[in-house]
Amino acid sequence: MQRINLNKNLGVLGGGQLGKMIGLAAANLGIRVHFYDPDPNAPAKNISNLFYNEHYDNKVKLLEFANKCDFITYEFENIPINCLKELNKKKKIYPGIQALEISQDRHLEKSFILNLGIKVAKYKNVRNFLDIENFVSKYSKKSILKTRRLGYDGKGQIEINTSNLSKIKSKIIPNKYIIEKLVQFNKEISVIVIREKNGTTKIFEPTENHHKEGILRKTIFPSTISKNCIYKAKKIAKKIASSLNIVGVLAVEMFVLKDEDILVNEIAPRPHNSGHWTLDGCNISQFEALVRVIYDIPVPQIKYAKKCKMINLLGENFDNYKTYLSKKNHKIYIYGKNNMKRNRKMGHVNIVD
Amino acid sequence: MQRINLNKNLGVLGGGQLGKMIGLAAANLGIRVHFYDPDPNAPAKNISNLFYNEHYDNKVKLLEFANKCDFITYEFENIPINCLKELNKKKKIYPGIQALEISQDRHLEKSFILNLGIKVAKYKNVRNFLDIENFVSKYSKKSILKTRRLGYDGKGQIEINTSNLSKIKSKIIPNKYIIEKLVQFNKEISVIVIREKNGTTKIFEPTENHHKEGILRKTIFPSTISKNCIYKAKKIAKKIASSLNIVGVLAVEMFVLKDEDILVNEIAPRPHNSGHWTLDGCNISQFEALVRVIYDIPVPQIKYAKKCKMINLLGENFDNYKTYLSKKNHKIYIYGKNNMKRNRKMGHVNIVD
Repeated sequence: MQRINLNKNLGVLGGGQLGKMIGLAAANLGIRVHFYDPDPNAPAKNISNLFYNEHYDNKVKLLEFANKCDFITYEFENIPINCLKELNKKKKIYPGIQALEISQDRHLEKSFILNLGIKVAKYKNVRNFLDIENFVSKYSKKSILKTRRLGYDGKGQIEINTSNLSKIKSKIIPNKYIIEKLVQFNKEISVIVIREKNGTTKIFEPTENHHKEGILRKTIFPSTISKNCIYKAKKIAKKIASSLNIVGVLAVEMFVLKDEDILVNEIAPRPHNSGHWTLDGCNISQFEALVRVIYDIPVPQIKYAKKCKMINLLGENFDNYKTYLSKKNHKIYIYGKNNMKRNRKMGHVNIVD
Repeated sequence: MQRINLNKNLGVLGGGQLGKMIGLAAANLGIRVHFYDPDPNAPAKNISNLFYNEHYDNKVKLLEFANKCDFITYEFENIPINCLKELNKKKKIYPGIQALEISQDRHLEKSFILNLGIKVAKYKNVRNFLDIENFVSKYSKKSILKTRRLGYDGKGQIEINTSNLSKIKSKIIPNKYIIEKLVQFNKEISVIVIREKNGTTKIFEPTENHHKEGILRKTIFPSTISKNCIYKAKKIAKKIASSLNIVGVLAVEMFVLKDEDILVNEIAPRPHNSGHWTLDGCNISQFEALVRVIYDIPVPQIKYAKKCKMINLLGENFDNYKTYLSKKNHKIYIYGKNNMKRNRKMGHVNIVD
C-alpha cells in the first residue's frame, strides 16, 4: 500500500494565536507542527509535542529546531533577519524572508510599494528634527511619527501636531522613524492573497476593518466599497504578493479615500488578524491556505458565507464572550493566554450568516 | 481585571482520531488537552504537550495523569472499567462510566435498552452451543455471532447459517458471545444526543449510514426517513441518554425497518464516526459539544447546512483524498496515523452544500 503524506513536520516561529491557528489547520491535514517561542507560556505550546522555548537570536537552537522540520513559517515579522537568512540555507522559510525583511521596516516597505507604482500615504524617513518640521509645514499639521521597526497594534506611534512638536525633539534618533501624513480615509480595508509555489494566486475578497487605539476591533465581510474599488484593491494586493514572491499568504492593509483612491498602509507576509473571519466565513481559512501552499497541497476556489463579522476579544471586553457562547451563529476562539491585559488580544468571535 | 477560564486541562483517554478531534475542539476554546494512550504513535500525541504513553490498566499512571486534569473523557469504550471506577473517585469521567460499562458488553447493552421499552434485534446471550442451534432454528437461518466485548468495526463478528454452524461449535466459550438475528433493514441511521449537566438535551438530526464489511463508509445528512421516523429516532436516543445520565454526547445507531419500526443496534457514550459530519454540517460539532458540556459552557441551538455527506478515507481508498483537495465544498481531515492498512480509518472528508 502506498505511503503518502504521513510524516510531515512544519516548524512555526512564534507560538501566539496566529501560530496556534496555523497549527490547528495543519493538524487537520495530518501535519505535525513544532513551535519556537521565547515565551514559556505561548498559547501554541499546548497544541504541540515539540516546543522550543528559546530566543530568536539563538542560532544554534534555531538550526537544531529547523533540522526537525520540513519547512519553516513564522507568525510575526519581528524575528532577526540575519538568523532567518542562515536558517533559510538549511530549510525553506515561507511565505518568504525577502518579504519579511521589507515588512520589518516601514521605510523599506513604503519605498518598495511606491516603486511598484502603488500609492502610500505621504511619508518621509526622519534623518533629523528638521525633516519633521519641514514635513509638518509642507504636508500636514496632523502627522504620525512611527518607529521604522518593531511597531505593532499601534505601538511605537505618536500623533504629532504643531503644539507637541517641540516635545519630541530630544527623542529623535536618526533613521529610526518615519513621519507620515495622517490620512483622512473613508474606509480601512484589507486584502489577503494566497500565492502558490507556481505563482498562481487566489484572493480573499476585501474586508472592512475597524481600529481603535491602533488595534483592530472588527472585520466585516463583505465590504461596502464599490466594485471598482474591490477590483483595484485586489489588483494591488496581487501585485505586491507577486513582486515579493510570496509562497503562502500575504495581508495588505489599505485606506480607501473619499475619491476611491487607495493607499497601502501596511503589509504582513503571514496570516493576519483581519483574516480570522476566513475560519468560518470561507471554505478555506488563511491558516489552512498557508499550510496547503507550503506543502504543495492544492488550494480550492474560495467559497464565501453570505456575511461574516469578526470581533476581537480584548482583555477589557473578554467577558463579552460569555454572552456569545449560546448564540448559534457565533463561533468562539479563545487563545489560551494566561495573562489578561487591556488591549491584549485574548480571543475572537466570528459571527456568520 | 477578572481572570476566567484561563487554566483548563482536560484529560482524554485514547489518542486516536476521536481524541484528536476532541483536542482540536478544546484548543479553540482555550482548553489544554492531555492524552493517555498505550500507542506511542497515537495521532493525538502531536497536538498536545502532555502525552502519557502508558497502558490502560496501569492505575498508578492513570491516577498521576488524572491529577493533572480537571476532568477526564475517553474516545472509546474498551478501557478496563475497574480502573475507571477508581479514577472516577478522583476526577469526574464524562460522558459517564455507567454508560461505558453498559456499552462495553453487548448483552448488558441490549438488555438495558430492552428494559427501557426500546426494541433491539432478536438476540440471545450464548451460554452453550445449544443456545445457538435453538436460536437459529427458532428465529433465523441467518444470524450473527458477536463477541460480547471488544468488538468494533465489524471485528469479532461471524455471520452464521445452517451450513457453517458445526464449524463454530468448538469455538464457543460460555457467556462470551451473543447471537443476533440478521436484521433486514431499510436504512441504518444514527442519532447523536448532547446532554448537559442539568439534563437539558439537544439532538443532532438523524443521519443515514452506509457500512461495508462492518465499517462505516458514508454518513449522509439529511436522512430520507419519514418525519415520524425522525421523531421516533430522536425520542429513543434522548430516552437512552437520559437513562444513562450522559454528560456530553451519546451516539445511538439504529436500524429502520420497512414498516418504519426502529431497532437500536449499538450505543456509544462518546463522539462517533457517524457524527464527523457535524464538523462542517453544523454550527457546533459533536466534539465541541462534548467539551462545552464538560466545562459547563453553554451549547447553542444546532444550526445545519443544507446538506452534508461524510466519506471515510480508509487505507485502501486514502489516495482518493487527493482528488478532493481542490474541490471547494470538500473539507479534508487527515488523522496522521503512520501505518496505512486496508479498512483502517486514515481520515475523512465532509462534503457540504
